[in-house]
Amino acid sequence: MIRVLAFDVFGTVVDWRSSIIGELEQFGKSQGLQRDWGAFADSWRGGYVPAMNQVRRGELPWTRLDDLHRRILDELLREAGIQADEDDVDHLNRAWHRLAPWPDAVAGLHRLKERFTITTLSNGNVSLLTEMAKRAGLPWDCVLSAEIFGHYKPDPEAYLGCADIMDVAPDELMLVAAHPSDLRAARDAGLRTAYVDRPLEWGQPGRYRVPFEADEFDSIATDLLDLADKL
Amino acid sequence: MIRVLAFDVFGTVVDWRSSIIGELEQFGKSQGLQRDWGAFADSWRGGYVPAMNQVRRGELPWTRLDDLHRRILDELLREAGIQADEDDVDHLNRAWHRLAPWPDAVAGLHRLKERFTITTLSNGNVSLLTEMAKRAGLPWDCVLSAEIFGHYKPDPEAYLGCADIMDVAPDELMLVAAHPSDLRAARDAGLRTAYVDRPLEWGQPGRYRVPFEADEFDSIATDLLDLADKL
Repeated sequence: MIRVLAFDVFGTVVDWRSSIIGELEQFGKSQGLQRDWGAFADSWRGGYVPAMNQVRRGELPWTRLDDLHRRILDELLREAGIQADEDDVDHLNRAWHRLAPWPDAVAGLHRLKERFTITTLSNGNVSLLTEMAKRAGLPWDCVLSAEIFGHYKPDPEAYLGCADIMDVAPDELMLVAAHPSDLRAARDAGLRTAYVDRPLEWGQPGRYRVPFEADEFDSIATDLLDLADKL
Repeated sequence: MIRVLAFDVFGTVVDWRSSIIGELEQFGKSQGLQRDWGAFADSWRGGYVPAMNQVRRGELPWTRLDDLHRRILDELLREAGIQADEDDVDHLNRAWHRLAPWPDAVAGLHRLKERFTITTLSNGNVSLLTEMAKRAGLPWDCVLSAEIFGHYKPDPEAYLGCADIMDVAPDELMLVAAHPSDLRAARDAGLRTAYVDRPLEWGQPGRYRVPFEADEFDSIATDLLDLADKL
């Protein structure tokens, strides 16, 4: 019996790429700059896994995602020869707090919340997730983050910590995510898994889509409304 | 400028005593027992500070409040000569997940949430607070607990941990509580403070009410609607 649904957030619940490109365009206008902001957004997101892995391997002490995002942003701005005021760069860095949900997300979460306890289980820090939810109307019952467990996904401590703090067995907890790597790690830790297809996460349909076997996950859904139908 | 309101929960947001007496009465009926359930509820709550202090002094390893409540309950049942099935005792112990809000609480939190980020900062564990909020309709933006910081209030780590994880300075965070001891510890850690009067927390008006000076706290309110007016 599934009692709690834990959601990956970036890409699964919110459309980070369109939101970040929009924020970069605003930033560009305010600075009088033109750049390929789509490529800039991809590079910003692309820096996230290597930075996080430095923390996972112990090469960096625990660093919240806001601060990893800032390191990557500072480097990208430097490479692009862009100088901006600290306030403007800080505001831009917090664009990750202001991501817009996929069109089905708010309605889907409301339906899923009727039957299950719904929580985030994201590598985003708690304040980022809290501000995002407040702006976007994401009706979480609880806000859990890698920050609380001191381990980024896909470390097993994040998945098992989520089950422990929600006071359920690992197989009473289902991870909902658009990324096979996240779901595989959750499954290996004993969780149930639901894949949600987000073909537009990286812009063009299917770009960077990772293949998986039809029977790898407990549920496969086209979006969160479809997941509510299936569960 | 205050950005985040952190709420004590037991007594401040929910009326634990009436709820627990109601649950004990149901338990008594199902077991065919009559006892002074008001006194039993007071003893159960009364065991909480000594048990928590054992954790705070390091005499017990970290123990979540559900488990402290269960230790105290087991002892009270033994003293009262009551034997019951494990399932019934477990259900009774989780009465603390099912506490009813004070009549002003849900409306007051909705109003406060329009201007501030609102979070719990309770000694109750995360799963307890999450289930309570879901049942009672408490619209928290975030669910924070002593469990997350590994320190029970009034340890300063709980208050400062809350400011840190919400990414605000201590003086941008206001603790809202019905208990001067909690507020004094928060103030000593650098937080802002709001006292909410709950004269019926212990049944008869003013029972166990702790006196305080008029200028000790930043705000004094009769309930959460009054606090929304004042902030």
